[in-house]
Amino acid sequence: MEKADLLLIGGTVATMNEQFDLFEPGAVAVRGSDIVAVGPAEQVTSAWEAKEVVDCQNHVVMPGLINTHTHAPMTLVRGLADDLRLDVWLIGYMMPVEREFVQPDFCWLGTQLACAEMARSGITCFADMYYYEEAVADATAQAGMRAVCAQSILKFPTPDATSYDEGLRRAQDFVARWKGHQLVVPAVGPHAAYTSTPEMLQACAQIAQEYDVPVHIHLGETAQEVQDHRAEFGMPVVPWVKKQGIFEAQVTAAHCVHLDDGELHTLLHHGVGIAHNPSSNLKLASGIAPVVKMLEMGLPVGIGTDGPASNNDLDMFEEMRLAALLAKGATSDPTAVPAKQAVAMATIIGAQAIHIDHLTGSLETGKRADIAIVSLEAIHSTPRFHRDPDSIYSLLVYAAKSSDVRHVLCDGRWLMRDRVLLTVNTEELRAQAAVMARKIDRFLIAREESVLSKLLAIGDVAREKTFEVQVKVLLPDTSSVEAALSSGDLLVIKPSQRRQYDTYFLFDDPEHSRLRHREDEVLNDDGSVTDADYRLTLTGPTKEREFAHSVLLSRSRFDAPVTRSLRFYREYFRPKEEWEVHKERRRYHIRYGGTDFAVNLDHVTKPKLPGSFLEVKSRTWSAQDAERKAELIGELLEMFGVKEQELVRREYLELAREAARLSK
Amino acid sequence: MEKADLLLIGGTVATMNEQFDLFEPGAVAVRGSDIVAVGPAEQVTSAWEAKEVVDCQNHVVMPGLINTHTHAPMTLVRGLADDLRLDVWLIGYMMPVEREFVQPDFCWLGTQLACAEMARSGITCFADMYYYEEAVADATAQAGMRAVCAQSILKFPTPDATSYDEGLRRAQDFVARWKGHQLVVPAVGPHAAYTSTPEMLQACAQIAQEYDVPVHIHLGETAQEVQDHRAEFGMPVVPWVKKQGIFEAQVTAAHCVHLDDGELHTLLHHGVGIAHNPSSNLKLASGIAPVVKMLEMGLPVGIGTDGPASNNDLDMFEEMRLAALLAKGATSDPTAVPAKQAVAMATIIGAQAIHIDHLTGSLETGKRADIAIVSLEAIHSTPRFHRDPDSIYSLLVYAAKSSDVRHVLCDGRWLMRDRVLLTVNTEELRAQAAVMARKIDRFLIAREESVLSKLLAIGDVAREKTFEVQVKVLLPDTSSVEAALSSGDLLVIKPSQRRQYDTYFLFDDPEHSRLRHREDEVLNDDGSVTDADYRLTLTGPTKEREFAHSVLLSRSRFDAPVTRSLRFYREYFRPKEEWEVHKERRRYHIRYGGTDFAVNLDHVTKPKLPGSFLEVKSRTWSAQDAERKAELIGELLEMFGVKEQELVRREYLELAREAARLSK
Repeated sequence: MEKADLLLIGGTVATMNEQFDLFEPGAVAVRGSDIVAVGPAEQVTSAWEAKEVVDCQNHVVMPGLINTHTHAPMTLVRGLADDLRLDVWLIGYMMPVEREFVQPDFCWLGTQLACAEMARSGITCFADMYYYEEAVADATAQAGMRAVCAQSILKFPTPDATSYDEGLRRAQDFVARWKGHQLVVPAVGPHAAYTSTPEMLQACAQIAQEYDVPVHIHLGETAQEVQDHRAEFGMPVVPWVKKQGIFEAQVTAAHCVHLDDGELHTLLHHGVGIAHNPSSNLKLASGIAPVVKMLEMGLPVGIGTDGPASNNDLDMFEEMRLAALLAKGATSDPTAVPAKQAVAMATIIGAQAIHIDHLTGSLETGKRADIAIVSLEAIHSTPRFHRDPDSIYSLLVYAAKSSDVRHVLCDGRWLMRDRVLLTVNTEELRAQAAVMARKIDRFLIAREESVLSKLLAIGDVAREKTFEVQVKVLLPDTSSVEAALSSGDLLVIKPSQRRQYDTYFLFDDPEHSRLRHREDEVLNDDGSVTDADYRLTLTGPTKEREFAHSVLLSRSRFDAPVTRSLRFYREYFRPKEEWEVHKERRRYHIRYGGTDFAVNLDHVTKPKLPGSFLEVKSRTWSAQDAERKAELIGELLEMFGVKEQELVRREYLELAREAARLSK
Repeated sequence: MEKADLLLIGGTVATMNEQFDLFEPGAVAVRGSDIVAVGPAEQVTSAWEAKEVVDCQNHVVMPGLINTHTHAPMTLVRGLADDLRLDVWLIGYMMPVEREFVQPDFCWLGTQLACAEMARSGITCFADMYYYEEAVADATAQAGMRAVCAQSILKFPTPDATSYDEGLRRAQDFVARWKGHQLVVPAVGPHAAYTSTPEMLQACAQIAQEYDVPVHIHLGETAQEVQDHRAEFGMPVVPWVKKQGIFEAQVTAAHCVHLDDGELHTLLHHGVGIAHNPSSNLKLASGIAPVVKMLEMGLPVGIGTDGPASNNDLDMFEEMRLAALLAKGATSDPTAVPAKQAVAMATIIGAQAIHIDHLTGSLETGKRADIAIVSLEAIHSTPRFHRDPDSIYSLLVYAAKSSDVRHVLCDGRWLMRDRVLLTVNTEELRAQAAVMARKIDRFLIAREESVLSKLLAIGDVAREKTFEVQVKVLLPDTSSVEAALSSGDLLVIKPSQRRQYDTYFLFDDPEHSRLRHREDEVLNDDGSVTDADYRLTLTGPTKEREFAHSVLLSRSRFDAPVTRSLRFYREYFRPKEEWEVHKERRRYHIRYGGTDFAVNLDHVTKPKLPGSFLEVKSRTWSAQDAERKAELIGELLEMFGVKEQELVRREYLELAREAARLSK
């Protein structure tokens, strides 16, 4: 007799191997972290003995479920804000709370809470993507669970990086440190196409290839994202991402709701795995992913819960059921995604989708012992038919619940016995989570009246690039600048003559928000007006950093179209102060050193200010890029013949307020 | 101090009253079967005392959930056959199993099992529609649950009625006996428009009005149903049902997936309640009901599980969640059906939809004490935020599970304490269900090879009317019949001249199935052929009853279009015997006594039979109607001048077999 550490005997063993072998009664032998035998009970027990034997009669012994897409720490914001428009939810609630609270301890606590919930519903492995992913990885390893942990990188400032350069450094450090861990596979997580720059994606691909680790990315989640992408880049999302080299790595693409057939073929060709998130896609009204088509093409489509803030739980039994039901509803075909296939998506296909099917996803000799043991004794699983052996899958998908999971084993170690978790202290986690919830409650109550949240509630708000390199110069006359602009040394793209009527709303909120309402008249050559733009721009507190010839401003900046009257906005926002600045502007878009700059020649008419102002501006997501632009601005100022002592540090609003003070 | 029997104190009391009052901490006082006080804990406890006090801290105290549409006994066929096309599932599995097994004891056992499952998930009240509804009502009352129980009536023979006349009698008896019961509201359940005749619906409406009880009916569940109805009656389903007077009663309409705006307005105008069944509609690929539109119009839309064979469980937490998610996905609006509305749909609006909101659906003084007490201590409900008091609904809908329901009270009586059921013996129910499942397994394994199931697996099968009144007469010549047909005394609708090539497949299965393949050529006046029909017709064993001048045949009869070659059918069905009958037929559709009859004048050419045959035939769903038609056939035979001794009892196939025997 060979010696194992553990024998699971007497249950219905659903191996989820290539032949979908079912053994009833079956048995599984485990030694150390590995499965050493699977088969009919008699065959296994006649060859193997073990000190620990668990009777699994009236239970299904199956691979631990695989949650292919989540943001585990977001358990701590579960139920914080629901039933809202995506931008209000994301930009109005999730992002501000994340900015304020997401620290390594938050991520550690949230992940442990997530692991507790996941283990209780039979999940042994998940693919995560969040900030401070090292804390996520550490909390997961301590909970004894398996995970592919992707360090998120965005072009915006994030809770763990002031720019994407920093995010890339963080990802590289994380991957280098965790590569080769027994439970955690580190990965690179460029958030999505619309939150990336090409350079950022290229750098992500490079890290993933250098360390041979997976990439986890959101692709084609919403129709808006796809439409915006086409408008901006003239091509769909997938070819654009491909162009940046991402698919040279092993990629898991979350959502893929709005990809066309060509894009899906590209994913197939590059071995990309899909994480389908049915609850999240419905809850955020993103749409329904073409799962049947993907599966028919041969794409590995796993199932994910997405983050608990958009679901609001981490229950793969719910997702498995919904994946099976939704596919039928979406295709009007009741035979679509039958139960057996849904269980495969939640196990072996999920493992393929996150590129670790050599480790887990099925009960096969040589794989890690990641096992869920599910009771068939619940009243909702009664009765059980045996005519069709495959009806066991139907029972698991359409009737069983996560609360039927009785024991869970991961990497050969018990995570749960008789519904009691063994590797995490749930009472302590609940207490700590309650403390965090109280803090978040207090924070949100305080900022509930924030200008941004009010803007989000009414507007189609877009976030602008964080960093603005700019220079402002007071000129007695503009002739030298105009000469340089018309000299042909510079590429001038869009010159225009404008009259701008700006109204500033100032607030005394903690963020010192400033909302600008701009009426921007475009003048024809004869001075007549045929067109006007109307924009709201909200800016937060500004951090300044000085360069040789310019200033780097970093601040949050949100743009929204004006859809109502100034009176409405005044009444709605109730600003503390209101100021007007009118000016005549000659606006040029120029290209210099391969970089776009805005050049303005302004004459301020309200309040009347003497002389003209030259402004040179450029925006970027990258702190490093900002430095390069600052140098270019220095060169431009030289070309314009501007002397340093003419630099003006203040914005027009400040100049207007000073003028008002002086005139009193 | 006033005396109550029970005080529930310290929980979050979600009253679901008109103002959506939330009391935290709140309290509810119960005396006998009734709620006698609801309000802030301090206010209630300062006025009321009780011998039993339950501490509900960290729990939600809410109205018991209301399952507005189910077929409770079908727990006993849960998971029997899934992921199949609707006709294969229904006609191939559900109906044959029901025909074989559905008896009062089956219904009683299945209902108790359903009650056990429902009580465990916080349901205190459901609306049922099935056969032997008296057994359902009895099992429900014994389990201590509340229900609106509708006796099903169909034009087909059902497990509890050989014709709809009998079904109507059964419904009337049931309603008369149970009217006024403390827990059970009896109701009339005409199954659906497509399974009813106008007379049947009119009779249902009459019973409902006479006894002042509700009507429960399926309406517009599938696109096919709606399309077929328009094709047959030239109007949508709802106006046709309305024409039969059904909406004069208090109606609950299940599904309503494919109704147009006009139809919804008709429902609104007549105070019809809707039962929305999101899981079932997805699983059977019926579609997604326009719930948001219905709610905006003011229709009371409750939520239902549908029968456990098409779901496969009775979990209103799952349905509530899916109703909220699906509405968002279907409308691309993440604010559609917010959590608060979903909870209302599962409670008070559900009570309105089944017309018993004066009894239940909210926690209000004077209503019955139907209460679910739901734990907030689960790890998946952690953490809890308090900024927005309504987040309690979000927690119930998006995170809580049926397994979080801790105590349940119905009509003031405990159904469950600490997740232990008190009114049903679950162990015994499970054992009895296992016995039943084994019997059903055996039955289906035996008939797995049945001709009908094979036909269903390939064809677009329609069930024909059960009863056929017919007469066949051998005539030396046909002149007297032809004279009568051309006399003008009879309305002759569609005369045609045909050549019919019939191939019969005979089987030795337990049902003695007989499958006819007919090639039916329509001849032009010059004898040329421009059109041919091809049909498969499957008939089961025939019961005969003789009338004065005719024979009543009752047998199952299924029609399907021919879509493949005769060779294919031969190889696919592998009949035991095969026979050919060819004939020339003059076919007349006539109307006599307000009734349609088919009149055939046949000359059998293979085998060659002497003389001509007159056939007069009419089909019906009603046994009573058959008798009336038999009398009319007698009158017709007289008009045709046919003498009784010429009656032929045998079908053409029998005559052909005899001719073959004689020629040997």
